[in-house]
Amino acid sequence: MTDRYASFVQSGAGRALVKRLGLPDPPRLRRHTPGDPLLPGPVLLGAATGGRLADPVAALLTAAGVDVRTATGTTPPAAGHDDSAAADGPADPAGRDERAGNGGAPAGSGTPARFGALVYDATGITDSTGLRQLYDFFHPQARSVLPSGRVIVLGTPPAECGPAREATAQRALEGLTRSIGKEFGRGVTAQLVYVTPDGDAGTTTSLEATLRFLLSGRSAYVSGQVVRVGTGPAAVPADWDRPLAGQVVLVTGAARGIGAAVARVLARDGAQVVALDVPAAGDALAAVANEIGGTAVQLDLTGADAPTRLADHLADRHGRVDVVVHNAGITRDKTLGRMDADRWDAVLDVNLSSQERINDVLLERGLIPEGGRLVAVSSIAGIAGNRGQTNYATSKAGVIGLVDALAPALAGRGISVNAVAPGFIETRLTARIPLVIREAGRRMNSLAQGGLPVDVAETIGWLAWPASVAVSGNVVRVCGQSLLGA
Amino acid sequence: MTDRYASFVQSGAGRALVKRLGLPDPPRLRRHTPGDPLLPGPVLLGAATGGRLADPVAALLTAAGVDVRTATGTTPPAAGHDDSAAADGPADPAGRDERAGNGGAPAGSGTPARFGALVYDATGITDSTGLRQLYDFFHPQARSVLPSGRVIVLGTPPAECGPAREATAQRALEGLTRSIGKEFGRGVTAQLVYVTPDGDAGTTTSLEATLRFLLSGRSAYVSGQVVRVGTGPAAVPADWDRPLAGQVVLVTGAARGIGAAVARVLARDGAQVVALDVPAAGDALAAVANEIGGTAVQLDLTGADAPTRLADHLADRHGRVDVVVHNAGITRDKTLGRMDADRWDAVLDVNLSSQERINDVLLERGLIPEGGRLVAVSSIAGIAGNRGQTNYATSKAGVIGLVDALAPALAGRGISVNAVAPGFIETRLTARIPLVIREAGRRMNSLAQGGLPVDVAETIGWLAWPASVAVSGNVVRVCGQSLLGA
Repeated sequence: MTDRYASFVQSGAGRALVKRLGLPDPPRLRRHTPGDPLLPGPVLLGAATGGRLADPVAALLTAAGVDVRTATGTTPPAAGHDDSAAADGPADPAGRDERAGNGGAPAGSGTPARFGALVYDATGITDSTGLRQLYDFFHPQARSVLPSGRVIVLGTPPAECGPAREATAQRALEGLTRSIGKEFGRGVTAQLVYVTPDGDAGTTTSLEATLRFLLSGRSAYVSGQVVRVGTGPAAVPADWDRPLAGQVVLVTGAARGIGAAVARVLARDGAQVVALDVPAAGDALAAVANEIGGTAVQLDLTGADAPTRLADHLADRHGRVDVVVHNAGITRDKTLGRMDADRWDAVLDVNLSSQERINDVLLERGLIPEGGRLVAVSSIAGIAGNRGQTNYATSKAGVIGLVDALAPALAGRGISVNAVAPGFIETRLTARIPLVIREAGRRMNSLAQGGLPVDVAETIGWLAWPASVAVSGNVVRVCGQSLLGA
Repeated sequence: MTDRYASFVQSGAGRALVKRLGLPDPPRLRRHTPGDPLLPGPVLLGAATGGRLADPVAALLTAAGVDVRTATGTTPPAAGHDDSAAADGPADPAGRDERAGNGGAPAGSGTPARFGALVYDATGITDSTGLRQLYDFFHPQARSVLPSGRVIVLGTPPAECGPAREATAQRALEGLTRSIGKEFGRGVTAQLVYVTPDGDAGTTTSLEATLRFLLSGRSAYVSGQVVRVGTGPAAVPADWDRPLAGQVVLVTGAARGIGAAVARVLARDGAQVVALDVPAAGDALAAVANEIGGTAVQLDLTGADAPTRLADHLADRHGRVDVVVHNAGITRDKTLGRMDADRWDAVLDVNLSSQERINDVLLERGLIPEGGRLVAVSSIAGIAGNRGQTNYATSKAGVIGLVDALAPALAGRGISVNAVAPGFIETRLTARIPLVIREAGRRMNSLAQGGLPVDVAETIGWLAWPASVAVSGNVVRVCGQSLLGA
């Protein structure tokens, strides 16, 4: 569960050695502590001509205490003067360019400005020729982003663009953000946020929630993602440091690993957590529940009466459940020719069918109110498939199907449905993987390290906020922009 | 341009050494020669209860000369008796299990049957619990597929399913096929084909075209893909060995590399090829055009009057163009901070904007008739982004946007729009990549080797057939199921 290599690299002696040998250089990621400012430096905000989001974004960031600069008011550092940058070679699918020497330098007289984030409103780009404006903004600032800084591009969902040329240009944005995520290094992440042009008040609230998540250390291990903000009854919290205050949240598989981290993060954010796990994990479950002031429910979700018993419990104790986090999952790895039927059935039932049964009962009984949120855990294996995991990958691809199908179906009830897809996360399961494969899994991403359970938990937390309900139908990878995909 | 390691491995001495050392074992792929049978062995056809495609598929495959067996009529080899299979370890993202010893053995008395392909109609699966039928079909046959054999699962597009549970189960199929692609080894590929439930005659024709492509050696380097078959004015060819007979096809960037291979394959399939490239490549272009009995057009597509001049030429000489293959493309790699504006502009203009200008003029002037096909070349970089290729990835992501936007817009005119996205293809460009990175790019896919230009050409060819016009809005990767993705 510990990445000894990263610890070594992040020490003084290790750092020097790694640089000399050209080894992977996993940066120390900025993670969230309550009370932290959103960013370690100012935001440079730019916009293509005619962009519709720069003004509202400037207003909401300023209100959130961020120092917002506009692109015209800065002195961009001269390009091409950074000799510490690696020479450009041919495209390197596994390469990373961990630049050094420009991190942490404060903006001051004679020093080019350094930014905590570059945010660019690209909604004004209506044609591929207009994409040049991206270059004009990002090229001079490519070395101005502080370590663990952020790059965020805002666009219009291609399917909601009228002319084909606008849809084409907006879709092109993804090529830029995904490449920047692979290029900038030093813990900098890059995301594309598509915001519906037919927004309501909920759109603005959920855009704020999304920016607060993506700019902060909560999103430390999320990069190269595309997030869609639509409409919905999103509610502004009284306190953005406790965005789940008063919310009843069910977390399945909460006794350990990622589930326990989810329970802790949601409780930290103010939620009343109902922590559920199988009876065999009862002691660990009770410990988590006690630690966070939540309640524990021992229940095997594969039992025929489990959904009804769970619904009864939630109805009796809370009268509702605002958020359901479907985290419970198992693996039973074997190649298909050697897999017995029990391994197939168990994985499909726990990881997929039981989610469906629980959703159906909770929704039928009206226990998930308007503005409720469903968050499921998928996996990179569900996106890309994996050798030895036909059962697991099928179940986790099904979770993506569940999101795709339920999000539009429940939009009318104001309920959001999303999934997270973890990549290589340091848990007791990954600790058992043989060293060489584990090292490959850890390093084959833009951050050159595995994620922590808290990274998955923070991402689920954002999707669980009442402020995020206009974010629906997304599958957000928590993988450090792993090279693996479909 | 040659993969010496693969040549070595495929020799007798190399093979023995590679096995002893456990090195990557790239199989010799089955590629297409006119007159070849579709498959090296019979098809085992199975169906979930209530499947709607098994009967028409059995009929069309039988008519195509394939020996079709049904799952109940076979004696499945007993599972777990193949001791040559590697022991199951934890999921290995980069691992391949190149099994030996069961390839090429003819079906006969006492020998379990061996199949050229497993085809499964999963359209009857309406709930996640029904996914068990996949296991029941594939588990006993996991070792019965011949080298370079095929696995194809047929489903219903999730968005066209009524109930959420059906959509979920149909989406889950992708987890299975992608995992099988990574698991079966020996050049076996796996695909998922979604067929609209509201089909017309064109649907059946394009399904046949798709199966003929996927089963044959034409699809040697295509694996782990999802193909959607909709509706449209697909025309059955008089001769499936000359599926482009009488068709006028424009190929841009045709002087060399992938473009030249496209021109050759389309001509072989019966097309009248208009080969286009820049004047500087005039000699190479003329050689290709002469070789295939086509015509050469020297034109710089970035010129302001290029679309009009091209349209004039096509109108004068042919009166129409049935297929446009937008293959012309360039790279100008640099990290964003070191990229000059010319590199950005040139790549965006050649790779994306010029395609848009040409499409617009050809469509406005009615030169692309009903049943026409547009095929564009995208890239893995357009899907996943790439370090040092912000310009290229943005342009190639834009090509995906162009497909997404134009396919529905042109459906009413019966014109299909698709893209291919090559992975690591052995060309003079990849030959310049440093050895270690080149080796990583070559081996990091389910086939453990790079593809050939002909593999991209065959895929474009299939999408260019008049029989394929009900296949639209797809981005098909030609990457050997590269591990890289989004």
